[in-house]
Amino acid sequence: MMLGLIEAAEKRLRGAVRRTPLLFSPFLDQIAGRRVMIKPECLQHTGSFKFRGAMSAVTALDPAERERGVIAFSSGNHAQGVALAARLHRIGATIVMPSDAPAQKIDNTRALGAEVVLYDRATEDRDEIGETLAAERGLTLIRPFDEPQVIYGQGTAGLEIAEQAAEEGIETADVLIPCGGGGLTSGIALALEGRGPGLRARPVEPEGFDDVTRSLASGRIERNDRLSGSLCDAIITPSPGTRTFPVMARLCGPGIVVTEDEALRAMALAFARLKIVIEPGGAVALAAALFHPSQVEGGTVIAVASGGNVDAGVFRMALERFG
Amino acid sequence: MMLGLIEAAEKRLRGAVRRTPLLFSPFLDQIAGRRVMIKPECLQHTGSFKFRGAMSAVTALDPAERERGVIAFSSGNHAQGVALAARLHRIGATIVMPSDAPAQKIDNTRALGAEVVLYDRATEDRDEIGETLAAERGLTLIRPFDEPQVIYGQGTAGLEIAEQAAEEGIETADVLIPCGGGGLTSGIALALEGRGPGLRARPVEPEGFDDVTRSLASGRIERNDRLSGSLCDAIITPSPGTRTFPVMARLCGPGIVVTEDEALRAMALAFARLKIVIEPGGAVALAAALFHPSQVEGGTVIAVASGGNVDAGVFRMALERFG
Repeated sequence: MMLGLIEAAEKRLRGAVRRTPLLFSPFLDQIAGRRVMIKPECLQHTGSFKFRGAMSAVTALDPAERERGVIAFSSGNHAQGVALAARLHRIGATIVMPSDAPAQKIDNTRALGAEVVLYDRATEDRDEIGETLAAERGLTLIRPFDEPQVIYGQGTAGLEIAEQAAEEGIETADVLIPCGGGGLTSGIALALEGRGPGLRARPVEPEGFDDVTRSLASGRIERNDRLSGSLCDAIITPSPGTRTFPVMARLCGPGIVVTEDEALRAMALAFARLKIVIEPGGAVALAAALFHPSQVEGGTVIAVASGGNVDAGVFRMALERFG
Repeated sequence: MMLGLIEAAEKRLRGAVRRTPLLFSPFLDQIAGRRVMIKPECLQHTGSFKFRGAMSAVTALDPAERERGVIAFSSGNHAQGVALAARLHRIGATIVMPSDAPAQKIDNTRALGAEVVLYDRATEDRDEIGETLAAERGLTLIRPFDEPQVIYGQGTAGLEIAEQAAEEGIETADVLIPCGGGGLTSGIALALEGRGPGLRARPVEPEGFDDVTRSLASGRIERNDRLSGSLCDAIITPSPGTRTFPVMARLCGPGIVVTEDEALRAMALAFARLKIVIEPGGAVALAAALFHPSQVEGGTVIAVASGGNVDAGVFRMALERFG
């Protein structure tokens, strides 16, 4: 049922979404003590997996609805995903962003053709602005993760993983996934349930922002105490979603928590050994594969590198400290 | 004829060589003023296209010959390519390197299972050492570029380009290729002659080391005045090869010369827009596509990013100056 919806998303995305390869290096295998395969969604259009879900949601709208345009709240990867999806459909995208978002992210989103509406975090209410705009213009809101068509879109990465693992002769493996609200993790988990029965999805989070790991352990939705102060900003959310959590609770293995320094070290190793650029939040799964081997099962581990939208300054710092 | 030999190499390499994707970004298109497609051979095993040629040469040996092992002279990408090809065949590889080569390159080559034999550039003769070793041990020399099976192996990248261009609906385009001795350029040119008649191979070189560009202009093999002092070390050779030059003279469009700063700027843009790591020598073709648009023809340009084996310090410098 769910698998069919992911397969339908895959059909709609064909030709638009990039089928990212599965990368590996003997040097990383040596560190991890097992075979390590990396799914580099940093190479996806707009630099993260978010384009899959955004494009899935936009293509799933009925034409009249789509024609009126879409709206999203995001200062990050979801914003760029929605902007590009809208551009490819030649429809309008309105992205509501805090006025203190990094200038480069605002510029990138605008350069993809979206209208960026800035609000003041201190004095204005984001949801109110969004609702007013949506009502006035008839826009459809594309939520970042707790939205079925977004989850199915992210699940297309899981279909590819199942297929690529089979091509490599991998029958059983933990699939480690950087996890914020759980859209990517639950989407991949659903895809693997149908197509990769020996592959087990597992969320990975940065220390101090381990809401999903704690939620899986306690069996109910837990929240983070704070929402800022991490270099892994791309995967910091208050709590797992009401749609994503039940899927993860049913299908995922235990979460793994890594330190920020481990994420930076994984970025430096991905630079040296895979020649890819990963952002800190996108590197936590590779960090878990490399530096927490005792928490992983099996002879092979698959790590998703979920995004690469990192400032040059942060990347230089990672190389300076760990390169 | 040549095409058949490249196709034969492709068959031998299947499953071993990574089929690298074709990447693009609207931000790069805007800079170039035309569509820019990037073939990221930095994502190839060992971080450069050199593995293709090395693997082609090793697989083409007769079994008894291969069993005795192979030898190469290289401190760079060719060394790692030969080491990995030998490892995959479980045969010995001897790599002769100058004792002042960067420690990391020596370590990487050893980690891939090769025996590294160091020599003193000032007092010892590399060729003599190599010939003695080869004779004593019955090793086969794998030359870095002026070797038919190496050229055919590099040509497999051209077969992929032709196929991927067709998938993208690209009928005519200049294909810009970082060029040292001409193994990759002539291999791709031969593949395109057979499979991509609207695609034209063109070598790109760094300023001061433009032996191929001058050779194509004069019609005879020209040499570089100096062989060191460039960050683009991966593609610095004395002159085009006696096998590669006639192929390039027959099939290639004029060469393009870029500055070292343009290569560094292309590296920073590939970091920001494609999330890939390119070394300076591997970035010259992208630099030509982006910063020398008047020297390129057509609505689409394809640039090969030939390798990503760059020190963290050099990469940080590129980001600091141009990121």
